[in-house]
Amino acid sequence: MSEMEEFLNPESVAVVGASRKPGKIGHELLRNIIEGNYEGEIYPINPSGDEVLGLESYSSVLDVENDIDLAVLAVPAPIIPKIIEECGEKGIRSVVIVSAGFSEAGNKDLEDKLVEEAEKWGIRVIGPNCTGIANYNKKLHATMETRAKEGNIGFISQSGALGGAILAWTRERNIGLSKFVSYGNACDIAESETLEYLAEDPKTKAITLYLEGVKDGEEFINAARKATRKKPVIAVKGGLSEAGAKSVASHTSSLAGNRKVFFGIMKQTDIIRAEGVEDMFDMARAVAFQKPVRGKKVAVVTNSGGPGVLATDKLDELGLEIPSPPAGIIKKLDFLPDASSLKNPIDMTAEATSEMYGETVEALFSEEYYDAALVIDVPVAWGNGVDEAKALASAKEKIDKPIAACWMAGHLVEDAIPVLEEKGIQNYSTPKRAAQALWALSQKTHEE
Amino acid sequence: MSEMEEFLNPESVAVVGASRKPGKIGHELLRNIIEGNYEGEIYPINPSGDEVLGLESYSSVLDVENDIDLAVLAVPAPIIPKIIEECGEKGIRSVVIVSAGFSEAGNKDLEDKLVEEAEKWGIRVIGPNCTGIANYNKKLHATMETRAKEGNIGFISQSGALGGAILAWTRERNIGLSKFVSYGNACDIAESETLEYLAEDPKTKAITLYLEGVKDGEEFINAARKATRKKPVIAVKGGLSEAGAKSVASHTSSLAGNRKVFFGIMKQTDIIRAEGVEDMFDMARAVAFQKPVRGKKVAVVTNSGGPGVLATDKLDELGLEIPSPPAGIIKKLDFLPDASSLKNPIDMTAEATSEMYGETVEALFSEEYYDAALVIDVPVAWGNGVDEAKALASAKEKIDKPIAACWMAGHLVEDAIPVLEEKGIQNYSTPKRAAQALWALSQKTHEE
Repeated sequence: MSEMEEFLNPESVAVVGASRKPGKIGHELLRNIIEGNYEGEIYPINPSGDEVLGLESYSSVLDVENDIDLAVLAVPAPIIPKIIEECGEKGIRSVVIVSAGFSEAGNKDLEDKLVEEAEKWGIRVIGPNCTGIANYNKKLHATMETRAKEGNIGFISQSGALGGAILAWTRERNIGLSKFVSYGNACDIAESETLEYLAEDPKTKAITLYLEGVKDGEEFINAARKATRKKPVIAVKGGLSEAGAKSVASHTSSLAGNRKVFFGIMKQTDIIRAEGVEDMFDMARAVAFQKPVRGKKVAVVTNSGGPGVLATDKLDELGLEIPSPPAGIIKKLDFLPDASSLKNPIDMTAEATSEMYGETVEALFSEEYYDAALVIDVPVAWGNGVDEAKALASAKEKIDKPIAACWMAGHLVEDAIPVLEEKGIQNYSTPKRAAQALWALSQKTHEE
Repeated sequence: MSEMEEFLNPESVAVVGASRKPGKIGHELLRNIIEGNYEGEIYPINPSGDEVLGLESYSSVLDVENDIDLAVLAVPAPIIPKIIEECGEKGIRSVVIVSAGFSEAGNKDLEDKLVEEAEKWGIRVIGPNCTGIANYNKKLHATMETRAKEGNIGFISQSGALGGAILAWTRERNIGLSKFVSYGNACDIAESETLEYLAEDPKTKAITLYLEGVKDGEEFINAARKATRKKPVIAVKGGLSEAGAKSVASHTSSLAGNRKVFFGIMKQTDIIRAEGVEDMFDMARAVAFQKPVRGKKVAVVTNSGGPGVLATDKLDELGLEIPSPPAGIIKKLDFLPDASSLKNPIDMTAEATSEMYGETVEALFSEEYYDAALVIDVPVAWGNGVDEAKALASAKEKIDKPIAACWMAGHLVEDAIPVLEEKGIQNYSTPKRAAQALWALSQKTHEE
């Protein structure tokens, strides 16, 4: 069993520093584990004894009779080495340290001391200065951040708070995650080991990664290569600019490396680079649910000219192609309104019926020609796009190629989006974002 | 009075083709005017007489006794020339044609005929193949699209449906508009005249423009130059790629021009180019509410390292500077937590109190050094960022420099955003978007 597995699938968790005071990190962390319905044993560790949040609490891990698989530490930095020692004596092998105040704050000696202590006992460490870990497939939320929804995207974040903000934001956008690991100062476990673990995790279909620097370049390249052969990895790199790199040093105390070096590594390892966190999850949603785009030919289907034009521009910019349909396909599109344009984009015009969404997409894929489709619906202001979504979703059942959707009208289309996403068709709020998702699908390099 | 003024400030409006059937364009258009609480006279024109939506209807504009300032036409294309003739006889000077089926559908002759008829009567025309116009400052919603909220951003769209999708989307994002003009095939009034009008409109603080092609390059350059001297103009250009340009031809039947030519025109006229519609409104919100960024020096303030790094990277990429504070300012930041980084970004760490948001920003602007600030808050999962927003909003009252905010945690911060925006501090969901907004503010070239 991978040692990461012991962190993410523990039978029991101790929260050291489980304060009774709401707003204290140890308290909120414990509350998250309880309210998240974790099914293993939970041990609050609080020197003032008694109980916390309805659970019996212990003054030390050494007072707990049963085995403890994972300890999450939220106590002041100076006493961390002593707590590690107690964890060692107790036989705990996996420790997450949420506490800050180590190398990122200039206290390198204290961090060295905790590492030394952990090595002595054979303890593996995530953190310090991280925001915890979560296994959404096991209802384990060992973090004080928002409890994200279960899904199939793995998320690794060097930055704790950014990770937390993203977890909150995934809930709002209904994006589901499999595992979350924030590793902060990375005194022991870092990006490479986590990447390797998620690459093997059957519940994770795509991996997202917020990275500031790497601990060991060669190790990272090897881990990334292995991972991208298994599943798509999408990364945002913080600290690309000189000014950004300087601020990385005082954040996670890692060396940021320069833009060129990093872009080179990403290219070499087939990691898909995202410009920002929204882009990263736009792309992750696409690659987690659909097969790769195997060629370059994309059909754009729309009921409105403008968005079709914008989609075409972006696809072209990203190196994809938007060729007109061959004659055989055009023949099959004879049911479209007279004013339609049968070039590409296929502009069905505002007269398009909802059925035409299904029929058109089926016709386009009736011959081996297109590799993917980008389908746009701008419903009238008194519509909601649901019938068009149903027609497309039902056509998708017969089609083996990736489709990105752009149901484009704010709240108007909010009921249509779940209809699409149930069939793995991800929806994007603008043509540009939908085009970028298809591009990411065309970058998938792994087998399968 | 500008002729555009007659379109946007009519005392009376006739809707020709005001069907009694919900879902018909003429019906929905009439309903929008009524439900939008337009205060002038409304005349439904419907050959089957009687009443529509509770208003007396007339079989022709000629049957209406009073004057009609504006007619909106939603009848089949072939009868448009005849309706124009009736409008002419009635003395109507402003006509919006929503109907499609003209040059964009290959019927150039029919479009020529309507233009000829309009010219004969001295009628000005917006459209055909457009989605109408709106004056939010006068509660006139002469379009079948979503009724947007009143505000100070003008929006010109060559594409009707894209315009409609954007109106729906502005509501969701709480973005307010002053005027909306969709001009479709632009048989008479086009982008240049509308731009000139909005440049003079005191209710419009920034102009957004979705453009596919221009009718007359020289006229556009002149209009754009005049407009950008008055207020910021931000544009998205559809049809930048060859494939996109082809689809423009069958959409609004205009010539798209190539990427290089258009980028040149934008540069020459000081139009700010946006890559997509989200970017366009991100930037428009910034420039509509705050003064220009007069130099290049930006202070980044954060309680979380990662987002600070991402903001710094993006600012740097956009050519802005992120210099460390001078000694005099550093001295004034002695109240910050020990672990804070006083370089730039100013990372107050997770220990930052809400008051520190105000105090830090005030200290940063206490000397003439920084030109703008980008302020980030990642609240804890059990927080909402409201107190931090209040502290920043109250500091802003004493500060004359632009500030962009990034309260970053999805629904967690939704109550904080109105607190910020009430003071003109626009909030962005990611550091990248906030950085881009400050960049747009640094591009403002107009006087004031």
